[in-house]
Amino acid sequence: MSNRLQTEQIQQLDSQHHLHPFTTHQTLRAASGPRVIVKGEGAYVFDSEGNRILDGMAGLWTTNIGYGSKELAQAAYDQILELPFYNTFFKTTHPPVVALARKLAELAPANLNQVFFGSSGSESNDTAIRLIRHYWVLKGEPKRRIIISRKNAYHGSTIAAGSMGGMSHVHQHSYPVYEGFRHVMDPYWYGESFDGETPEAFGLRAARAIEDEILRCGPENVAAFAGEPVQGAGGVKIAPDTYWPEVQRIVDKYGILLLADEVITGFGRLGTWFASEYYGIRPDLITFAKAATSGYVPLSGVLVGDNIADALMAENDDFNHGYTFSGHPVACAVALKNLEIMERDRLVPRVKETTGPALARMLARFKDHPLVGEVRSVGMMGAIELVADKKTRRRFSDLGRVGLICRDHFFRDGFIMRAVFDTMVCAPPLIWADTQFEEASAVIERALDQTLQDVKGELAA
Amino acid sequence: MSNRLQTEQIQQLDSQHHLHPFTTHQTLRAASGPRVIVKGEGAYVFDSEGNRILDGMAGLWTTNIGYGSKELAQAAYDQILELPFYNTFFKTTHPPVVALARKLAELAPANLNQVFFGSSGSESNDTAIRLIRHYWVLKGEPKRRIIISRKNAYHGSTIAAGSMGGMSHVHQHSYPVYEGFRHVMDPYWYGESFDGETPEAFGLRAARAIEDEILRCGPENVAAFAGEPVQGAGGVKIAPDTYWPEVQRIVDKYGILLLADEVITGFGRLGTWFASEYYGIRPDLITFAKAATSGYVPLSGVLVGDNIADALMAENDDFNHGYTFSGHPVACAVALKNLEIMERDRLVPRVKETTGPALARMLARFKDHPLVGEVRSVGMMGAIELVADKKTRRRFSDLGRVGLICRDHFFRDGFIMRAVFDTMVCAPPLIWADTQFEEASAVIERALDQTLQDVKGELAA
Repeated sequence: MSNRLQTEQIQQLDSQHHLHPFTTHQTLRAASGPRVIVKGEGAYVFDSEGNRILDGMAGLWTTNIGYGSKELAQAAYDQILELPFYNTFFKTTHPPVVALARKLAELAPANLNQVFFGSSGSESNDTAIRLIRHYWVLKGEPKRRIIISRKNAYHGSTIAAGSMGGMSHVHQHSYPVYEGFRHVMDPYWYGESFDGETPEAFGLRAARAIEDEILRCGPENVAAFAGEPVQGAGGVKIAPDTYWPEVQRIVDKYGILLLADEVITGFGRLGTWFASEYYGIRPDLITFAKAATSGYVPLSGVLVGDNIADALMAENDDFNHGYTFSGHPVACAVALKNLEIMERDRLVPRVKETTGPALARMLARFKDHPLVGEVRSVGMMGAIELVADKKTRRRFSDLGRVGLICRDHFFRDGFIMRAVFDTMVCAPPLIWADTQFEEASAVIERALDQTLQDVKGELAA
Repeated sequence: MSNRLQTEQIQQLDSQHHLHPFTTHQTLRAASGPRVIVKGEGAYVFDSEGNRILDGMAGLWTTNIGYGSKELAQAAYDQILELPFYNTFFKTTHPPVVALARKLAELAPANLNQVFFGSSGSESNDTAIRLIRHYWVLKGEPKRRIIISRKNAYHGSTIAAGSMGGMSHVHQHSYPVYEGFRHVMDPYWYGESFDGETPEAFGLRAARAIEDEILRCGPENVAAFAGEPVQGAGGVKIAPDTYWPEVQRIVDKYGILLLADEVITGFGRLGTWFASEYYGIRPDLITFAKAATSGYVPLSGVLVGDNIADALMAENDDFNHGYTFSGHPVACAVALKNLEIMERDRLVPRVKETTGPALARMLARFKDHPLVGEVRSVGMMGAIELVADKKTRRRFSDLGRVGLICRDHFFRDGFIMRAVFDTMVCAPPLIWADTQFEEASAVIERALDQTLQDVKGELAA
């Protein structure tokens, strides 16, 4: 039924009944209405007007194996017939949740062997916050409550997870922000380094901002440091190589926990199953979501370190937390099949060997474009910085305006990248082949040129 | 693969890798291990030892149409092939989310016409908290932040939703509880009425506790009252008939918002699509989850009143909130099919006409049992209070001990009810027929007698 509704009718019903995430509804409903995505196939989505669009964002950092997998459809179908739901409270379990927990423990860093499930990245980070503080209570250090995070971090949208995040616009709509978080600088060399500061020196300085904050708070009050290995929604901010080793040194020195939010980086995006492996860090907790199922069914979780699990186990009491859909059998069955496909098709090593380097090469083509301040990528996530002055890195006035102009050019030309202010970011499905890179490259070239036409009066001479 | 793991192997892997919600893992892992549920079919689940178990809890207030629906499997399969995921950020939408939003607006009370989607009841209540406070800021009354809720309310497990809830053990593992909530008495006549107080008089007194709290806080500081139409996890506490009309009078008098948490009562459990209709209340927001998809795929949402939607629309800005999986296409497609099945099979009117009365009759059989202080039900949710003294309503010592004894007798005899301390609660799938009521009735009779044998020395003379 639903697919046969005409575009305008769908748009009208959407405006009557559907509240979208992070959206100005006045604008959405006043304008021509939302674009209606009706179909997905491999690397492409299709809208209700018949346009084929190459999806450079994998849905939303999510569909790592691409759209429309018949194998995942079959896995969902079979599990629904077998056991479509059961809870994991009250001393019960079921085969898919056990098999998935085992599989995840196998893929995760060696010290992470237990999984607490949820249905979204927000839920997992909310769980992690409670678990971190609970851990310190169990260890007899209840004063350790402060979690240090970073500006422009994105850890989700529940009130607690949004408070851990460092997005001021999210904080603005929390009444009030949940307490106990401190936000230090993000390791964003292009935007925040001093004149002439090398990435290496900047990386150390950004890491030491964490140590400064620990000392400001008093180390005896600090519970954990939380960070995305690569800041995703913040604009694909890739820390210099010196950053994460220094972070590890600091958390070790002060004996605080390390939470790696791998909601975006987990499941192969950097060419390793988890980015923690890529950066050689040893987190005590990893939160994951999105690509665990390639987004086909909502699933998330927290990979819990042995130190924390041991503390829970030593206590003859509940951890009073959990969700009805924790360890949902259909979600777990789809995740298992998704991971099986990723392994069989070697999607993770291919990021390292083939697709990641191809993305880097593609972006490098545009580094000399008059609009482009920097291109950067790691594995299959990348960014293009649009600036008014390449030399001084000066931004356009009204930050975000030019990013949206450029995004609209991309979209009209059949390619999706996301604008984070004036930083164009991408995170394609891991299945891209030469065709997709060539197609994307051609669109980027045209769209940058069109954007340049639109704003050339504002460019530095 | 996974289903072929033997029971012991599954239990062992579970203990190595799986952290369960609200569970004492020391006990779980020291004992014989969790029961492994491997299959669901209609009203029954099956464990790995081949036992057939009648599920009196619908999974966890969830599988309203029963287990193993081929139609829902097909709906998931088809939608995965069509469009397994797309985000609803950035001015895009898709047919299933629009069709579901429209359908929900049609089923909901007249003033609720817009839906904000999530993937769990916790997420929806977290969303509602932020939305309520945001509304008052938009209306120029930012001081209105306090949300009045009730003791023993359950609104979910994120830190904010858990703080709105009134469960002390959940608060105990929040560090700290999120601010801005006040908890008044729950409308639990059996447990909290004075000697000789009628249900009607008690209902008015319990409602007026809300008014007292509003006056204590200062009405200008109060944003909303939040309540489950029937407290579910708190022990199927059914308010006397006088309660909800008085609550409506109070929220109207002080002009505060009313949030009905229908995560449990939504989708037919009381014989109306929403319990708000059953009780004749006019909430400004309804949160829902669980049975929207009969639990087959995680989905939740907030039904948002026109007053709130209008305030959002009047603002030329984002509401900075939302989830990657908000309006997930597969979840929406499964929900649509689930609602279609419920309508076609008349499951909601049947609760009023057939199944609800049958549940009431079944429970009434046990009201004179020596262990039973009270039986009660509304629609397809019911409770049996186990007490040491029927006359004085005195509980057994070590509250919850006898409930677990009784629950274990139920479970061993192939029937699931949940123990909330010493209150045995049930919420069967809405598809129960005479056979299931007879079967349940026989187990309850045996299990109550067995429990009586176990504890008869403790009974009042």
